[in-house]
This record gives sequence, structure tokens and C-alpha cells, in this order.
Amino acid sequence: MLQALYDGKIEAFRKQFLKLHPYDRAKFYVEQSPEVRKRMYEYLSPAEMAEIFDHLDIEEDEYKIYLSEMDPLFVAQMLAHMYADNAADVLNELDKKEVANYLTIMDDEAAKDIQGLLHYKEYTAGSIMTTEYIAIHANQTVRSAMQILKREAANAETIYYLYVVNEQRQLVGVLSLRELLTSDDDAMICDVMNDRVVSVFVDEDQEEVARKMQNYDFLALPVVDMNNHLLGIITVDDIVDVISEEATDDYSKLAGVPDVDIQRNPFEAAKKRLPWLIILLFLGMMTANLISRFEDTLQKVAILAVFIPLIAGMSGNTGTQSLAVAVRRLAMGDFEKEGKWSMIAREALTGLIIGLSCGVVITIVVYVWKQQFFLGMLVGLALFATLTVATVAGALIPLFMHKLRIDPAVASGPFITTINDLISILIYFGLATMFMDYL
Amino acid sequence: MLQALYDGKIEAFRKQFLKLHPYDRAKFYVEQSPEVRKRMYEYLSPAEMAEIFDHLDIEEDEYKIYLSEMDPLFVAQMLAHMYADNAADVLNELDKKEVANYLTIMDDEAAKDIQGLLHYKEYTAGSIMTTEYIAIHANQTVRSAMQILKREAANAETIYYLYVVNEQRQLVGVLSLRELLTSDDDAMICDVMNDRVVSVFVDEDQEEVARKMQNYDFLALPVVDMNNHLLGIITVDDIVDVISEEATDDYSKLAGVPDVDIQRNPFEAAKKRLPWLIILLFLGMMTANLISRFEDTLQKVAILAVFIPLIAGMSGNTGTQSLAVAVRRLAMGDFEKEGKWSMIAREALTGLIIGLSCGVVITIVVYVWKQQFFLGMLVGLALFATLTVATVAGALIPLFMHKLRIDPAVASGPFITTINDLISILIYFGLATMFMDYL
Repeated sequence: MLQALYDGKIEAFRKQFLKLHPYDRAKFYVEQSPEVRKRMYEYLSPAEMAEIFDHLDIEEDEYKIYLSEMDPLFVAQMLAHMYADNAADVLNELDKKEVANYLTIMDDEAAKDIQGLLHYKEYTAGSIMTTEYIAIHANQTVRSAMQILKREAANAETIYYLYVVNEQRQLVGVLSLRELLTSDDDAMICDVMNDRVVSVFVDEDQEEVARKMQNYDFLALPVVDMNNHLLGIITVDDIVDVISEEATDDYSKLAGVPDVDIQRNPFEAAKKRLPWLIILLFLGMMTANLISRFEDTLQKVAILAVFIPLIAGMSGNTGTQSLAVAVRRLAMGDFEKEGKWSMIAREALTGLIIGLSCGVVITIVVYVWKQQFFLGMLVGLALFATLTVATVAGALIPLFMHKLRIDPAVASGPFITTINDLISILIYFGLATMFMDYL
Repeated sequence: MLQALYDGKIEAFRKQFLKLHPYDRAKFYVEQSPEVRKRMYEYLSPAEMAEIFDHLDIEEDEYKIYLSEMDPLFVAQMLAHMYADNAADVLNELDKKEVANYLTIMDDEAAKDIQGLLHYKEYTAGSIMTTEYIAIHANQTVRSAMQILKREAANAETIYYLYVVNEQRQLVGVLSLRELLTSDDDAMICDVMNDRVVSVFVDEDQEEVARKMQNYDFLALPVVDMNNHLLGIITVDDIVDVISEEATDDYSKLAGVPDVDIQRNPFEAAKKRLPWLIILLFLGMMTANLISRFEDTLQKVAILAVFIPLIAGMSGNTGTQSLAVAVRRLAMGDFEKEGKWSMIAREALTGLIIGLSCGVVITIVVYVWKQQFFLGMLVGLALFATLTVATVAGALIPLFMHKLRIDPAVASGPFITTINDLISILIYFGLATMFMDYL
């Protein structure tokens, strides 16, 4: 295939290439050099390139590069042939001026469709919906609906649901193709459609949409405005992408990396991770400063320093655990059901049990190891107190962020760990100073 | 509706209840008391209960409770009416003896279908596939395929793809309903089908299946054995669940919790988190033991203790970051493409840059704060070395686990943090002891 492309054998190349699934075509396309890609633009039509772009999964800045290789008119025609939601996604990566340019030379209807999608806020239902759905009326027969479906099958993003609208384009019902096929040809749509339609609002969060799609096992969900006008549909393939993205996002945040995606350049990678680390470094300096206030205590009982990483580390570990549980719970909307006080009380009790267990274990271990009963008691007591506090802090901080309408997932593991370092040192040295005389 | 149920008004209840989407019926069902649920079994048929169970999303042990409330024959009939993959999922939660019981009283064909699915290993394509698909032959017309489709529409889990098989039930083609509807009625299937079928092997990992489904934007994927015999299909709704589960799983592991799902009982929650914490506690004891070997150094220069949490904490933070990146990269299969040495070299360079930046910052801060140049240099040097090592360790450990065929996500944040504590203390006190005379 590549050989045919190099040799300029248009027909041979097209025959083999167009046999591939669009995703495989897209994979082939991105692996080529700019020269080969330019040849592809000559051999393929805008509609054929549109299929490739509908399946492209690339970094945002790469769209710019690819588009700049093509003739502007070719770009405009290609965008017009793409599904409107994907075309809008591509245009969202470009400068406003370029967008305006492409829309001007595009055919009017496609331009209107895409433009309509451009102004929806990111991460809302509107930003991932498409306008290529099939709408029918309640007072037509199954047979005529079937004709509409066959006519529009080539352009609609899904043909497996038909949405029933009234004169004002308000959504009044839905009918799956399965139901349509098993209905009598002469039946009226209003008699066979479902009038309890599950829909989402255009400004609803995409995570909420994903949850609905997952619960109801739909292949597409209709999107409406406040007056129940049908604006578009969201298909399950877009929802699959949303779920993956949101999961990667939560994961990155827990690890304290802004972005765990493939970063081939070490300088770029370091640049992305450093800001967070520098903040943590200064938080760490606060811990150092705190310890330095206890230098007297340390001077007298140097052995205290031995248990600093153990206590600080353990409080970080438990804090991260309860943080992760709290973040997931908030994401699942579980918190609304249960109420915050009950949740905090439960975490506190969990913390007490964990603290007590670890405290007893460490008391025994230290006593056996160092043969100092009071030192064992002190470390055990400190561990008990810090773990209890760390568990509650791990749950409280994301809850607090949720209240302030900050994404609770921002409270990353490293952040919680550093905060808990501070708390645990305060408790440990506070107790040590109090019971100094016994050590 | 609830009132109708309490008052024993069967018809009134059924009329309202069956209007609901099956997911909403399932939600209603799980919210009721055992007494009310038992009444529901009387008012609904096994087929109607099957629809509820197909949409149930509950903890594993709850299935046992629900099934024990029903008459065994009712259970068997309900399972037979469920989609075979869902029925197999339910049976997988029960004791072997119970399973055998239900299968014996079930009608033979359904029992065979379900039994066939029971022996596939968890997390493979086989374990999530269903056998309710539509198969046609290559040498029939579009019209006759359409008749088969209409006949089987009620039972198939998806009617949106038709799979073309030969006499040996080998998969030779696929046809979407969209293509079927837009083809001429008299055309032969072999002329309109796609013969390059994307399929998955029955023992393929479910994550691999999810990736394929996501890339190709399919609504279902056929499952075949090594000889290309069609065994079943996997539908997109099951893949959506797989993606969510795997994401939650990775997330839990990074946080070092076996399970971040809702755990209402604090004792249960503590029991789940404690084993990991106790292991970490003993790892922490190794750190303590290490420091105690440097007690002489500490006795002489107590100020060294001040920077312990800072250095240990920072190495934990960078380690967690590079761990998360490595785990995601492994999950995305990126590592195969690039090769391990190139990946390690890149992480090492990233670590060097991060170490150098943080090292310089801390040297200046300590010098300004404590007015001790050598102390600043020591802390800076130690931070530089530990961060470089921690970054590489964070990437190497999951890679190493991958080699040993252990899920790399098991290398959780807390684990990496504790390992890095150990390494960083060794470096810090090693350097301090070496340069003792300058402090």
C-alpha cells in the first residue's frame, strides 16, 4: 500500500486503503511523513479525509500541523463532511481567525451546524453532542418513519434511535430501531413510541451524562434545553472517551502530576511536574521549620529523630487512603445521600480503629527493639493520634474543596502527605516535649 | 405505586411499574424491604424480574440475599430469561451446589448457554461476552437476513450487527443494520458484508477488548476461538462498565486501598485498609532502624533531623509522580513501542532536571534561613540525589513488576513512598556522615 503511494499508483493505493477500517486508516495517516501525507490529500477526497479525521486521536497541537498542510478549501470541505461534533472539536483547537476563515468558505448548512456547537462550554453535554440525529413526528406511520430513516441513514451519527418531536421541535418521545422493526407497518408512531424519555440538559456536566448512559445502557441520549427543545444527541462512543478521560484525570491528580499522558521530552515532563514539587518543597520547609523549634528536645533525646520518617510516612499513607475513598465517594454522588456529618463520623471511627491497631503494634515493636517502655508508649501514642487525625483530614479536605466548588480531586496524594507530615510532627514532638522527663 | 403495592392492587402497581425504564425499576426494587420485595415476586413474572436483574448494580453478596428470598423454580426461570452473560455473572457469586441446583431445574437450552459462559476466566473476553447474537449466512439475500433479524430481535442482546458465519460456524463477515437497511433487498449478503472483521479472542484481556472497542467505535465486537469459530459477542454497555471498573481499580491501587467502593461500616473499612498499613509500618521500621545506625551523627549535629521529613517527603512525591506516569504508559501499551531502555533513560533525565532544580532552590533557602553554607549544600546535594533516584525508582518498579507479570498498578503510592523514604535516608545520612567535619 505504501509502495503504491510512493509510486503514485492512485487506484492501487485507494483500493487497498479504503478497504481498511477508518481507525486503521487514521493510524496509517499519522504514521506518515508530511510529504507522504500531502500526497494522500491529493489521492483522497475531502469526504474520505473526513472519515480519517473522525477517527483521529491525537494531541491538540497536532491538528494545527495537519490542517496547515492542506489547502484551506480542502480543509473546509473536509470539516463539512465530518460529524459536526468532531468538526467542532477540531476547530476548538485553532485560533479564532482561522476558525472564521474556514467557516466562511464552508457550505452554509454545515457551517451553521458546527457554529452552533462551538459556543458550548467545555465538559458540558453541549460540547460533546452532535446534531446529526433522526427526528420524526408522532402522527406518522411506522412505514413513513422507516422511509425517513433509510433516507437519512448515510448522514446520521446513529440510526438506532429515532426521536419524536412536535411542531415546536420539543422532544415528546423516543423509539429504538429495534422497536420500529418489530412494530406493524401501519401503526402510528404515537402508539408505539416511549413517551417517558430519558434526556440530559445541554449544560449538564459530561460526567453526569456518562453516569446516565452507563446506568440506563443507552447507545445515545437526547440533549434538550430548558424548554425541552431537542438540540442534539450524545452517542455512546463519545461517552466511552469521556469516562476514560475523567478516570485518567482523577488518577493524575491523585499522583500530583498535571497530566500523565505520554510526554516524550524529558524537559517538557520536568516542566510539567516541577511547579507542584516546588510548592510541596515550601510546604516541606514549614515542616523543617517546625522541627527546628523542637531542637532543644532533639538535642536532649536524639533517638526521637529515628521515628520521624515512620510517623510522618504512616500519616501520609493513611491520609492518601482516606482521601482516595472520599474523592471517589464525592464523584459517585454518594455524599449527597448520606450527609457530611455521618461521613465524617464514620471516617473518624475508621481512623480511631486504624490508629489504635498501628499504635499498639508499634509500642510492642519499639519496646522489644529498644527495651525502652516509655519511648514505645510515646511513639505508639503519637502514631495513634496522627493516624486518627490523618484519616479524618484525608476525608475532610476534599469535602471542604467540594463545598468551595473546587474539584476535590485536586487534593492530590503528595499534597495530603505533606500536610499530614506537618500535623504528625507537631503531635509527635508536642507529646515528646510534654513527657520529656520520662524518656 | 408503593401504595398500590401495599394495598395489594396488582394491576395498578403493574401498570405504573412497567412504564418505568428497567434501570428505574431496578432502583425501586433494591430500595424496598424484604417483605415488599417478596410481594413483588408474586406480582411480577420471572421474565419481568429478569429485566430488573439485567439492570441491577449491587454488591456481590447481595445477590445471594435476593435470590434466597425467591422460590428456586422462580430463580431458575428468571435466570433463563436474563441475558446469558448477566445470568452467568449472578451465578458466579453463588456456591457451586446452588449453581448446579438452579441449572438442573432450568430449561435445557438456557442452562447450556449459561453453563458455557461459566467456565471462562475472570477478566477475559469470554467472561463478559454473551451468546445472544444474530448469525446469518453469506449465501442468503438481504431480504431473508432481514426476516431472521425481525424474528430474533426480541432475544438478541444487540440487533445492530449481523455476523456472517460459514457451515463450520467460522466468522467470515459482519454487516451493520445500517448497511443492511441501505442495501438492495435482493442483494446477496456476501456482496454487501465486510469481510475484514475486527474480532477478539476469547481469552484476551478485557482491557484489550475495551481498547479495541474504543478505537474502532463499535457497538459490539465478535468473540472467536483460535480457529475463528464465533463464540459470542461483547456489547458496548459491558465495555463501559469494564472501563469504569479498571479505572477505579488503578485509582485504588495508587492510593493503597484494596477497594475504594462505598464501605458503610467503619470496622469493615478499617479491616480493608489495615493489612497494607501494617506492611508499610514494618517497612517504616526499617527506615527507623536505618536512622538509628546514624545516631552518632545525629547526636553531634542535631539540626540534621530538621530536614528528614522534607527530604523523605519530596522523594516520595516525585516517586509517586513518575510511578503514575509509568503505570499509565504500561496500561496504554506505550512501553512496547518505545523500548524499556529509552524509557528509563528518559525518566533518568527527567529526574536529573527535577533533582537539580529542587536542589538549587533548597540550598539557597537553607543558606538564607540558617546562614550555614555547608548545611545548605548538604541538604541540596542530598535532595538532588534522592529526587533523581526516586524518579527512576518510580518508573523502574512498575516496569519490573510488568516483567514479572504482576499488575504494575499494585506498586501503590504509599509503597513507593515508603521505599523512597528508605533510599533517601540512606543518601542523606550517608552524605552527612561523609562531610561531618564541615558541619
